[in-house]
Amino acid sequence: MSGLRAAVLGSGSWGTTFAAVMADAGCDVTLWGRDESVVRDVAEKRRNSKYLPDVVLPEMAATTDAADALAGARVVVVAIPSQVARGTLEALRPHLEPDAVVVSLMKGVELSTDKRMSQVVAEALQISEGRVAVVSGPNLAKEIAERQPTATVVACSDEANARLVADACSNTYFRPYTNSDVVGVELCGAVKNIIALAVGMAHGRGFGWNTTATVITRGLVEITRLGRALGADAETFSGLAGMGDLVATCASPLSRNHTLGKHVGQGMTLDEALEATGTTAEGVKSSRSVLELAEKHGVDMPITAGVVAVLHGSLSVEDMARALLARPQKAESTS
Amino acid sequence: MSGLRAAVLGSGSWGTTFAAVMADAGCDVTLWGRDESVVRDVAEKRRNSKYLPDVVLPEMAATTDAADALAGARVVVVAIPSQVARGTLEALRPHLEPDAVVVSLMKGVELSTDKRMSQVVAEALQISEGRVAVVSGPNLAKEIAERQPTATVVACSDEANARLVADACSNTYFRPYTNSDVVGVELCGAVKNIIALAVGMAHGRGFGWNTTATVITRGLVEITRLGRALGADAETFSGLAGMGDLVATCASPLSRNHTLGKHVGQGMTLDEALEATGTTAEGVKSSRSVLELAEKHGVDMPITAGVVAVLHGSLSVEDMARALLARPQKAESTS
Repeated sequence: MSGLRAAVLGSGSWGTTFAAVMADAGCDVTLWGRDESVVRDVAEKRRNSKYLPDVVLPEMAATTDAADALAGARVVVVAIPSQVARGTLEALRPHLEPDAVVVSLMKGVELSTDKRMSQVVAEALQISEGRVAVVSGPNLAKEIAERQPTATVVACSDEANARLVADACSNTYFRPYTNSDVVGVELCGAVKNIIALAVGMAHGRGFGWNTTATVITRGLVEITRLGRALGADAETFSGLAGMGDLVATCASPLSRNHTLGKHVGQGMTLDEALEATGTTAEGVKSSRSVLELAEKHGVDMPITAGVVAVLHGSLSVEDMARALLARPQKAESTS
Repeated sequence: MSGLRAAVLGSGSWGTTFAAVMADAGCDVTLWGRDESVVRDVAEKRRNSKYLPDVVLPEMAATTDAADALAGARVVVVAIPSQVARGTLEALRPHLEPDAVVVSLMKGVELSTDKRMSQVVAEALQISEGRVAVVSGPNLAKEIAERQPTATVVACSDEANARLVADACSNTYFRPYTNSDVVGVELCGAVKNIIALAVGMAHGRGFGWNTTATVITRGLVEITRLGRALGADAETFSGLAGMGDLVATCASPLSRNHTLGKHVGQGMTLDEALEATGTTAEGVKSSRSVLELAEKHGVDMPITAGVVAVLHGSLSVEDMARALLARPQKAESTS
């Protein structure tokens, strides 16, 4: 979208990649980050050597001064760690333009409040939910940064704002579809990591593609069931933000949740697996919250329940697989 | 299902595997095949060294005499090559028990008539469609033969017969779900190979998981669109026979269609790719028929159309990917 002013908050791999996508779509982009060396690298060398070492970025501005980045920005993209988002955005609120549409690239929920990230954004910036869009899909940052053909979903309750954001990121390799179901899209982003853990566990135990495909498919059924109970649109779950992201996350060996699950499937305890992967996998944090949410709404989520039980040592992966298959035979349905 | 008499026609890898599944479910199984050495191997050594070299089979009978196999069989499973099914079954018709339920494991369509395989079975045996079930799902034979946890769909317009077949194959590692949508399940089985070709082409061209997930997801959308036009149930497509089988077929590097597509993606012509894979991939045969069917019903199938154009040399894989992404932005929907 030629000449549209956009700011991207967060110079990690997904923030930097999305800034590049918008620059390649013709936007006038400024990337904001806290790390001065990263910012200088982007601005002066068109590189982010720390997070995307092999990629030459398109022309964009970069700064450590958030007020500078936000000045004049019609679209503001937020790609900062979920658990510090509220505080960071509250401090930036005075600098937001009154007509800015804000895009959340963040996944999961705020653990202290159990709120979805678009809700956190709207509250922290004191704007209506119709001014907050979310972007989610089969979007491994590294592949997009390499300009591989990719599709995604832009969801916003305000259709005009969804289209504005879609135009701002649409280019020759990146294709956005619009959707008004923000709840469904964000739910997909939170629950997929739990299913990725289950797939990783199955792989670690030595199971192959049939099991992977079955866990993904039945996992999507249980996400959809929860989504329906929460008022989301079932069709979102069979789309790019649901099935698409689930397939990319579960099939790719690069995913942290997959790797952690695999270690557990090979016999490590949760603590050992966390130490071996050297990072916290999102699914570990969210699996208990999601299971509680499901129980509160009377929704059956056997795979999520199995993952929680395996992570906490009360069930073996072998027994989880058997338990899932031993459930009474029934008609195949999401309802 | 303890003691139920079952016959399996076809001693290739899927027929033999399904016979093993039913034997492990407690059925009294007889496997029929034309190849005397395979039959002797199964009956005497509990092996099918030709098709499943690494597997020890459960106890079952095996014969080259079809009348023997069919005598007393309440469930008859057909796993013979699609294009010879009609003639083979016509010859066996006199030996079929009057209460037998027949299960088709065959994929694709009969090329001479464009009929689905369950229709071919019903016509050749002169039985009602309610006596024909189909089994389809994320079911790579080799993994099932190794007794990995797997789920599947048993579809039959007669619910009691669907349940009978489900009971006959349900065991500790194999879990059938029932479904009454035979058209949807068979359509999934035919079209998934075309999508697997598209995924293979993208891999061959060097694209990664985002593209794979996008092609699978948007491919499922176009299969679903065709299914709706033909009276199938949309939910079948997001289930194990649709999404499940699609994920298993597309993600597994073992699939013939995937391999053939990959060769084309790397720059071979169709003829060179067919020679390199040494076999005909089902998707090559069915892609034109499916596209014609879609055009007849006014259904848009851009991935299928792209695959046909690439296979026949009128489009490059690069241009196919760009063309799919360059379509006008729109809301994400199957309708």
